Amino acid sequence: MISEPFRPAAVCEPAAQTVAAWIGGELLEAALAPPRLTGLATLAEAGATDITFVASEKFLAEARQSRAGLIVTTRAWDLPGRARVVVGEVWAAVARIMQELYPAPSAPPGVHPTAIVGEGVRLGEGVSVGPYCVVGDGAALGDGVVLGPHCLVGAGCAIGRGTRLAARVTLVGRVLIGERVVIHPGAVLGADGFKFERVGGRPLKIPQVGAVVIEDDVEIGANATIDRAFLYETRIGRGTKIDNLVQIAHNVQVGPGCMMAAQVGIAGSTRIGAGCLFGGQAGIPDGVTIGDGVMLAGQAGVYTDIPVGGMYVGAPATPVKEFWRMTAVQKKLPDLARRLRALEQKVEQMEKIEGAGEEGKG
Amino acid sequence: MISEPFRPAAVCEPAAQTVAAWIGGELLEAALAPPRLTGLATLAEAGATDITFVASEKFLAEARQSRAGLIVTTRAWDLPGRARVVVGEVWAAVARIMQELYPAPSAPPGVHPTAIVGEGVRLGEGVSVGPYCVVGDGAALGDGVVLGPHCLVGAGCAIGRGTRLAARVTLVGRVLIGERVVIHPGAVLGADGFKFERVGGRPLKIPQVGAVVIEDDVEIGANATIDRAFLYETRIGRGTKIDNLVQIAHNVQVGPGCMMAAQVGIAGSTRIGAGCLFGGQAGIPDGVTIGDGVMLAGQAGVYTDIPVGGMYVGAPATPVKEFWRMTAVQKKLPDLARRLRALEQKVEQMEKIEGAGEEGKG
Amino acid sequence: MISEPFRPAAVCEPAAQTVAAWIGGELLEAALAPPRLTGLATLAEAGATDITFVASEKFLAEARQSRAGLIVTTRAWDLPGRARVVVGEVWAAVARIMQELYPAPSAPPGVHPTAIVGEGVRLGEGVSVGPYCVVGDGAALGDGVVLGPHCLVGAGCAIGRGTRLAARVTLVGRVLIGERVVIHPGAVLGADGFKFERVGGRPLKIPQVGAVVIEDDVEIGANATIDRAFLYETRIGRGTKIDNLVQIAHNVQVGPGCMMAAQVGIAGSTRIGAGCLFGGQAGIPDGVTIGDGVMLAGQAGVYTDIPVGGMYVGAPATPVKEFWRMTAVQKKLPDLARRLRALEQKVEQMEKIEGAGEEGKG
Repeated sequence: MISEPFRPAAVCEPAAQTVAAWIGGELLEAALAPPRLTGLATLAEAGATDITFVASEKFLAEARQSRAGLIVTTRAWDLPGRARVVVGEVWAAVARIMQELYPAPSAPPGVHPTAIVGEGVRLGEGVSVGPYCVVGDGAALGDGVVLGPHCLVGAGCAIGRGTRLAARVTLVGRVLIGERVVIHPGAVLGADGFKFERVGGRPLKIPQVGAVVIEDDVEIGANATIDRAFLYETRIGRGTKIDNLVQIAHNVQVGPGCMMAAQVGIAGSTRIGAGCLFGGQAGIPDGVTIGDGVMLAGQAGVYTDIPVGGMYVGAPATPVKEFWRMTAVQKKLPDLARRLRALEQKVEQMEKIEGAGEEGKG
Repeated sequence: MISEPFRPAAVCEPAAQTVAAWIGGELLEAALAPPRLTGLATLAEAGATDITFVASEKFLAEARQSRAGLIVTTRAWDLPGRARVVVGEVWAAVARIMQELYPAPSAPPGVHPTAIVGEGVRLGEGVSVGPYCVVGDGAALGDGVVLGPHCLVGAGCAIGRGTRLAARVTLVGRVLIGERVVIHPGAVLGADGFKFERVGGRPLKIPQVGAVVIEDDVEIGANATIDRAFLYETRIGRGTKIDNLVQIAHNVQVGPGCMMAAQVGIAGSTRIGAGCLFGGQAGIPDGVTIGDGVMLAGQAGVYTDIPVGGMYVGAPATPVKEFWRMTAVQKKLPDLARRLRALEQKVEQMEKIEGAGEEGKG
Repeated sequence: MISEPFRPAAVCEPAAQTVAAWIGGELLEAALAPPRLTGLATLAEAGATDITFVASEKFLAEARQSRAGLIVTTRAWDLPGRARVVVGEVWAAVARIMQELYPAPSAPPGVHPTAIVGEGVRLGEGVSVGPYCVVGDGAALGDGVVLGPHCLVGAGCAIGRGTRLAARVTLVGRVLIGERVVIHPGAVLGADGFKFERVGGRPLKIPQVGAVVIEDDVEIGANATIDRAFLYETRIGRGTKIDNLVQIAHNVQVGPGCMMAAQVGIAGSTRIGAGCLFGGQAGIPDGVTIGDGVMLAGQAGVYTDIPVGGMYVGAPATPVKEFWRMTAVQKKLPDLARRLRALEQKVEQMEKIEGAGEEGKG
């Protein structure tokens, strides 16, 4: 049994001044800080030599209680009486501190002797190709590209500079990847789209000869799958982030700056606008268009086009306010049914009385 | 940033007569066709030297506007005044043209020197085993079988002729695969079924010693998982097509000619008939029976047996007409609740008046 | 076409006495048993030399019809007139018999010559490292650990004794695994959590420097993904069983003894109690707390905390009785709407008469 909770080990123990310099922030009440800071911690877990941070106004009270030695915060959420660094963007500062304290191990440069590199492959400066990678003929890896162990880069695929395939990433068919992209283990890009047409009562496979295009700064999660297009391309827009086990079908077009949580599925030829946010397990059918800035709750099921913006919940995906109004009433449904029955009986009774009255008048 | 849209490059530039010969169609108004055709394109994208096609009557108007140099169509959707090839089945013709213009690269014959092939393995004629494949003792690969890089074929597994494991496919336990099957990267066949029984309040693992049987002409998507059976077999019927990230549990029986879109999940021992169509993310519990020709919409959640045919939507899966009738009324639920309240008040009011009237009469 | 149904081959043909000894049961009417038993079979499939078993009272009638030569049962479900072995726990007995008849092939001891083992790696007694495995610097494998082909164990990862990574399992980042854990092919543990914060309108990646901790006796399915934590750990409790294609996000804490069926998704920082049972495709959002013993039906969608116990169905996840009551009324919704309309008209009519009556009185 592994019972000790895991804590990462920092590679250095900076003074508060150093931390402030890393993140370009203003150090206040420095005298209250310990001489050396030993790690980054959450508000609740931080000890006297830890750095912590306030990422939202709602954590201000908890921050005041925190035992941390140094607090990263913003002007708006100031904490007088504490050693603190005031910055414009707390999360940007946290990311920077983490890179200093817990730097990612750098990939060994060069091509591992067990890697198999095909003919006519172009390798940029400082490329790292890990053990048991297979790089097909005519592929191109830009400067600083990292392939972790067990990656497959199919013939003719191209990977832009600074892109990192963590390990066991598979690119087949034609896959064209931009710069600074990160792809996690087990992801498969470029497999055949699922396109079968009924001919003579049986599914006939239609060849898939298009590409997968991944623009700059995209991130793709573990065991995600992105199929290549029938004729042209499946495209993921710049800066879009895709979580584990997401399925993007052939010919889908995803705009820039979207975020898709795990297990989202998008069927063939659908178009997604810019800046969309999809919760986990949300599903979008083939051939629809989703406008810019659309948000889908987890498990939302889209049935038709959504023109632009707004938050949608449930299946069929429903504007969030309408969904909760419906849900609230749904819970009362058995009660409504009972009341309706009671009312019917009452009215029936009244009719009888009425009828009797009418008759009585006759 | 990769901004150029991808277009596949054709390996030849046929005359219209050649195209007609490939697909066994009737060439009409050949004089209007360009001397050489340079690619296949959609109606909207086609240029003057492209071949295009009409796959449905609803695209006829768009076809008339298309700039394509040659149109593949049927007698029923004829296009007088255009160079065209008339065929019986448009999609069969398109598939054939694509195979000529954009042939799939052929796998290098033979066993790659880095592949590890166990004892007593039978290799058919023209087998291709890619780099870093591992083939266990006693496995059998039929004529023309292709294993892409990084495949694992467990001991005693058998693969029929012409079957292709694209890359990084894993067969463990006992997996028996028919002819002309295609399996995409990352798929795992033959892992233990998820069978635990509570003994003494804890889950006890029940060994899984059955097989996975994949019949001829099946296709299995990237990162899909098909578990082996408890005692006998998990079986996928002839010609069934399974998309990415689909889960088929132990002892499931899937009939022939089904199509399952991405992320479908089928739990243990369930039986699926012939020719079923399941939309993405549909889920079927353990131990149920789904009849022939049943269609499930995306995300449909089956709760009980479905005897035969019909289209089902939602969870619990509901016949499509009933589902939409219910959905339409559901949207009006807050309105219904309001109206019921109003009616109750009105009736109450009427009762008072009535009562007053009665009293007045007294 | 593979048409023969698969039957596993037993490695021995025990007498009934031997079977009884294996499982510590009482052999009754032994004279009716065949001299040798050739395999384990279901009640329906068993022949005269097969062992079968009664796993539930509801199969008693079927057991009486079974042709099996020997029946494993309990005192409560006795079968006079049949050769049988009476035990306390039928499933425990079945598991034991299967291990004798169909033992799992043992992994070849030692490190395969193609495996790459980094510096400072600690290898326990009897470790088996398969072909093309990559074990990073400073990793530790306990006694009897088995790595099937194509596994990757990242630098600094630790695996407890008797744990088995079936094949092509990928551990990246920091992954700490207990004893007797089983991980199926394609699973990815330790990939970056999906943590992006909007800074300047764009998603900014927050480094993920925590660990994945897997306690003893856990089982993890094929192509499942478990992300490492932001700062501390993602933890799976002792004896928890996780099926194929399940997603566990960063910083999730899962208690002991849970079972999660395929394609379940759990978002970041959520806490799951002990002994929970989640049906396939169930989804839980980030930051919620699920108490001990909570059961979720397949596709259930949790929206908020669930304090303790109970069975939940649908989305939003609803206590099972309430769900079915709601569902029953929902089916009658079109009828309710019609009846409400009718009642409104009737009351309107009554008001007119009333009004007329009032006027008549005037």
